[in-house]
Amino acid sequence: MFELLKTDAHSKARLGRLTTAHGVVDTPVFMPVGTQASVKALDLRELLEMGTKILLGNTYHLNIRPGMEVIRAAGGLHRFMNWPGPILTDSGGFQVFSLSKIRKIREHGVEFRSYLDGSLLFLGPKEAMEIQRTLGSDIAMVFDDCPPHTATPRELRAAVERTIRWAGECREQPRAPGQLVFGIVQGGANAALREECAKALVAMQFDGYAVGGVSVGEPEPEMMQAVELAETFLPAGKPRYAMGLGTPAQLVELIARGIDMFDCVLPTRVGRNGTVFTRRGTYILRNAANKLDFGPLEEGCDCFACRTYTKAHLRHLYTAGEILALRMLSVHNSHLFLKVMADVRAALVAGTFAEFRRDFIANYRPTQKVLLARAAAADR
Amino acid sequence: MFELLKTDAHSKARLGRLTTAHGVVDTPVFMPVGTQASVKALDLRELLEMGTKILLGNTYHLNIRPGMEVIRAAGGLHRFMNWPGPILTDSGGFQVFSLSKIRKIREHGVEFRSYLDGSLLFLGPKEAMEIQRTLGSDIAMVFDDCPPHTATPRELRAAVERTIRWAGECREQPRAPGQLVFGIVQGGANAALREECAKALVAMQFDGYAVGGVSVGEPEPEMMQAVELAETFLPAGKPRYAMGLGTPAQLVELIARGIDMFDCVLPTRVGRNGTVFTRRGTYILRNAANKLDFGPLEEGCDCFACRTYTKAHLRHLYTAGEILALRMLSVHNSHLFLKVMADVRAALVAGTFAEFRRDFIANYRPTQKVLLARAAAADR
Repeated sequence: MFELLKTDAHSKARLGRLTTAHGVVDTPVFMPVGTQASVKALDLRELLEMGTKILLGNTYHLNIRPGMEVIRAAGGLHRFMNWPGPILTDSGGFQVFSLSKIRKIREHGVEFRSYLDGSLLFLGPKEAMEIQRTLGSDIAMVFDDCPPHTATPRELRAAVERTIRWAGECREQPRAPGQLVFGIVQGGANAALREECAKALVAMQFDGYAVGGVSVGEPEPEMMQAVELAETFLPAGKPRYAMGLGTPAQLVELIARGIDMFDCVLPTRVGRNGTVFTRRGTYILRNAANKLDFGPLEEGCDCFACRTYTKAHLRHLYTAGEILALRMLSVHNSHLFLKVMADVRAALVAGTFAEFRRDFIANYRPTQKVLLARAAAADR
Repeated sequence: MFELLKTDAHSKARLGRLTTAHGVVDTPVFMPVGTQASVKALDLRELLEMGTKILLGNTYHLNIRPGMEVIRAAGGLHRFMNWPGPILTDSGGFQVFSLSKIRKIREHGVEFRSYLDGSLLFLGPKEAMEIQRTLGSDIAMVFDDCPPHTATPRELRAAVERTIRWAGECREQPRAPGQLVFGIVQGGANAALREECAKALVAMQFDGYAVGGVSVGEPEPEMMQAVELAETFLPAGKPRYAMGLGTPAQLVELIARGIDMFDCVLPTRVGRNGTVFTRRGTYILRNAANKLDFGPLEEGCDCFACRTYTKAHLRHLYTAGEILALRMLSVHNSHLFLKVMADVRAALVAGTFAEFRRDFIANYRPTQKVLLARAAAADR
């Protein structure tokens, strides 16, 4: 199911190949986020053109709307949204804990209020796996307890214990044909808890392992540390997925720390807010400097937006509130994330990842604004 | 410049060919509206795929934002928005009269407040033609006085006199290379005024003639009558353009009354409001009946939206506030308008327009809701 093709000589970076029921995915891979059965502002053709191989869908959101009656009638999520490739579905654990202000944690899951109509809902290991079975995703995630960055040590421990227990329950649920299931390592910035959680999950033999409890508002060094703490205990022969991360530079650094899979709303969300990702960092399209700039969003970029429209035109469309601006920023940003992953894979094949990483990080100037936006993007 | 290829044996419908600086346009033609240098929600590829041959741009809006400094630096509107084909620009007359609550009519134009920042602006024949020269449109419209449907006979007469005088001034202004200029017939539902205005404009020998003062809230019979009143006095050898109209059925009826060119925001605006145009009329995507309908938006349609997505999926995306729904409804509706025009042209070539018209009107069930939306669409 997962083939580890090569490991970098100078870092933990890995080149791999993940085989799913709907196709093969080369790793490291970035997964655009299609929370509500649509990657925001993008269509099928645009996704395929920019090299998307696998999408993310969301149990919590899709269960509330359109609901499983519709998904079942459509014949699963792939058919419903017309996506021919693999889909990974998040379990809803993250959303239950981040979106629901009113919730009660029970032994077998969480009782919470629908953000749509306030109705009482319940999501636990059994329910999350049942929904993901109906969605028919290629990779299902276990239902975890994802505490906030501000959790106390006591809360953190309780979350880890619950996560382990629920992972065991998820492991036993029926699956869709060929569906893989990934465990999620929690434990915050606590080394002992990360180790305990990772070891317990690995003992259950999941098809892959995710690092959760990141992208919950923590500062970058803490995020990197959390991933390092968990990674140490994960088996080399299984894919590793860092949930909800990050900027292009963070992705490159996380790959160097042994991560294979990523998802993040940043490219589309920050795009809709008028921020452009480039290999040199980000810039605000609205800035007056772009008013008379008839070059592309990023020099040398071959995405549809850069081949078709100028910065000056898109800046005007953005200030005028035109949908085309939101679309083209989403196209460019998502394309960049996917292209950086393709470049990483090529560097790993060529054995030049160390140079690639050094140059990429040197050129990429992060902005505080984007790091903050990442934190705010917690409702991925 | 305009070649009248054929006139229908049973109606006033005409088959024609309009040659502009940026290409040849077969008529009857529908022009998607790119008010702010973008046809709302659509990109270049989508426009070309659905058979768009000529776009509309807007003097009033583009002059306020991005402003002529930007358009001049870009090398004109075609380059600014990357549209390779012909562009017709409205003069801003309609907007000055419909959008500006505070305005003063002077001898040589209108003083009004910018809707953006309240600054004092002035638009008259000289200014409107100068802006259209900078935009570099293939067809410029004269600056007219477009009174509301509720204008008194005295106001209507004043508007016609002003329109004629201003048309004369527009006629004398410098033009962009190869730019055509169309006159606009005003006069409301008053036969004598329509005749007087049409005759005066025809005497000035414009490159084409538009019927204005329609799509200003009048009932359909009055709109049809206004077009008929004006058309009688227009020369056969010049293109005729009915401004801001209408539904597909109205377009077919207006073609039967001798009109060659149309523009309307209906397909995109009504699309963004969740209404789907079909050859049988319109329907509301949100209706519960579409929840489990996995067919396309319209059976037999070959637009990108109908080839790619189901009604059930788009209904879900629309209720979930996803941009892709607005995009796909805009794609489908605009495609339908353009396809109906292509079918009309084919029927005119084949000599079967009478049958086409009869069948089309029999199948098309107009809805009051859409007719009202058309009226509300007055800020095209």
